[in-house]
Amino acid sequence: MALDIPFYTAEAQGPYDLVSIGRFELEEGGVIPDLQLAVATFGTLAEDKNNAILIPTWFSGTHATWAQAYIGPGRALDPERYFIVVVNQIGNGLSTSPHNADDPSIAMSKFPHVRIGDDVRAQEQLLREHFGIERLALVVGGSMGAQQTWEWAVRFPDKVVRAAPIAGTAQNTPHDFLFTRTLLDAITSDPGFNGGEYAAPTDVIAGLHRHADIWATMGLTTDFWKTEFWRGIPPLVEGMQFETYDDFQNGFVRLLFGLMDPNALLTMGWKWQRGDVARNADGDLAAALGRITARMFVMPIEQDMFFPPRDCAAEQKLTPGSELRVLHSIAGHFGLFGFEQSYLDEVDANLGELLATT
Amino acid sequence: MALDIPFYTAEAQGPYDLVSIGRFELEEGGVIPDLQLAVATFGTLAEDKNNAILIPTWFSGTHATWAQAYIGPGRALDPERYFIVVVNQIGNGLSTSPHNADDPSIAMSKFPHVRIGDDVRAQEQLLREHFGIERLALVVGGSMGAQQTWEWAVRFPDKVVRAAPIAGTAQNTPHDFLFTRTLLDAITSDPGFNGGEYAAPTDVIAGLHRHADIWATMGLTTDFWKTEFWRGIPPLVEGMQFETYDDFQNGFVRLLFGLMDPNALLTMGWKWQRGDVARNADGDLAAALGRITARMFVMPIEQDMFFPPRDCAAEQKLTPGSELRVLHSIAGHFGLFGFEQSYLDEVDANLGELLATT
Repeated sequence: MALDIPFYTAEAQGPYDLVSIGRFELEEGGVIPDLQLAVATFGTLAEDKNNAILIPTWFSGTHATWAQAYIGPGRALDPERYFIVVVNQIGNGLSTSPHNADDPSIAMSKFPHVRIGDDVRAQEQLLREHFGIERLALVVGGSMGAQQTWEWAVRFPDKVVRAAPIAGTAQNTPHDFLFTRTLLDAITSDPGFNGGEYAAPTDVIAGLHRHADIWATMGLTTDFWKTEFWRGIPPLVEGMQFETYDDFQNGFVRLLFGLMDPNALLTMGWKWQRGDVARNADGDLAAALGRITARMFVMPIEQDMFFPPRDCAAEQKLTPGSELRVLHSIAGHFGLFGFEQSYLDEVDANLGELLATT
Repeated sequence: MALDIPFYTAEAQGPYDLVSIGRFELEEGGVIPDLQLAVATFGTLAEDKNNAILIPTWFSGTHATWAQAYIGPGRALDPERYFIVVVNQIGNGLSTSPHNADDPSIAMSKFPHVRIGDDVRAQEQLLREHFGIERLALVVGGSMGAQQTWEWAVRFPDKVVRAAPIAGTAQNTPHDFLFTRTLLDAITSDPGFNGGEYAAPTDVIAGLHRHADIWATMGLTTDFWKTEFWRGIPPLVEGMQFETYDDFQNGFVRLLFGLMDPNALLTMGWKWQRGDVARNADGDLAAALGRITARMFVMPIEQDMFFPPRDCAAEQKLTPGSELRVLHSIAGHFGLFGFEQSYLDEVDANLGELLATT
């Protein structure tokens, strides 16, 4: 039943463990009979279990970028000091997802709707039952990982000591909903998508490429393209050369998104569109954010075109114990990939300062 | 042969004249056997013919918005002082276009590639031969109209006394090329498009709607949607009510673009992607802009997501006799529609000041 997609393997993404948390009931009413979370850990859990850091993943992403660009000895996310747990979000292709669900009741197009709150509840259960972790020194995530970070801080205020949502909001904006729809419609409008019942992701390659093209204009920035910043980005395939921006778009952005599973992207996109901590407070955003007790740095990226600093600043102002720390990347939202040392240094400086607070 | 599309009529767009300038050879090698330009004029040409203002149109637009929102007694574009000529760009649905071409050699999918330079040459010929105008007191246009304005100032420096490109660049950026491609691919990927040989635009309505959805996220802004600015925008259809942002997207943005001709949008989009005054100077942008003698106000819109002020400012710096005048609209690029009195007042103040210079 399950599709064999090379992108969703330890070979491609780096090592991880699949941890079952059993039958999992979803907020929208669906059920995942055996929810398996793909978990990558770094460092050692202290005896008092107070050195745990949780990192939830972003749309289309896995633990890989965190492992490669953000976590390391001497960094703010230092595995020699912290026990760092990266949990791949439900439906991302590594955790239980449409293409890898053994249970035919949730395979492919039958995969149920999952919400940000589901991920956060699943992660809380995982940390408690599997690792015995009751408090997190830090939750940090980018984009949809930021959505989950906000949700953690609102839903489990007693468990989150510090939080750092990077380039993402607590309540998704209408613009973001509409933007995400363009991404998803690029896929579903491909006749090869066949209502989610394709034989292989390559049947949907035209849709995946249109999806990637929209990312290129909204995920990246005019400056990224104008300055040919892509010339300094290592290719995904060794030896590949980029002579023109179209080479980079074809050989990097389209190539990357073309490796992914359409149903996984749709599952994550549906979830992203509906991220909203106000669901925890009868729709009252200020009330929801007012529950936060974590020490929080809200960290938008200056040139981000769909999670712009002004949207993040508006939420930060409603959040007690928070500060706005604007990051800078010529790549805009895709700055999250960590293309620039200066951006990574900014992240490290902020996370280091946040972790030093008591 | 020609398709009957109600959007491209004087009833929908307001009065205009069709003026033939005869056989027209295009820069890309194609020929329009009988190029007819749709021209709307306001005011009276002075005897010395020195009070003429030219306005070229933007992507998907016609003379209508200029007539309704920008031109009027007491305004900067005052028909009691100036003879204002709005020329609909080639392929926009009113001037000679794929759907209205009588000649089968250029009908529908056979319509030739047209460049910004073709429009400008055609307009120069029209003004000279039809109106006897040799000098323009002002060329002003928005978006693709700004591209044509820049091209005028570079190509015919002796004929342009003043110029005001609003929300558009002299040299299209890579980001803009990629963005425009997403707009065009949304249309061409619709099976109903049929390589441009559809029986009616409604065959391509799904593609036109995806096209409109991309506009909603890049043409408008996060603030526009977040503040529900759309509640104050008059509906296109009398009595239509917008309760939610999706109502507005469906009932305004999708409705508007759904009235248009797919091949017309593709003709304009191809042209937009390749706008570049540097073609007049062997690819040297600085040299091309250095030829400008017009007094020029370069007027980007602050929140514009694909013609951002920084891209316009970079060109302004290369342009002698120019100043940067940043406009402000919560609607971003679509501020061009003139939704806000404050934006229109800014435009009027700047154009008034520019027209007062000698």
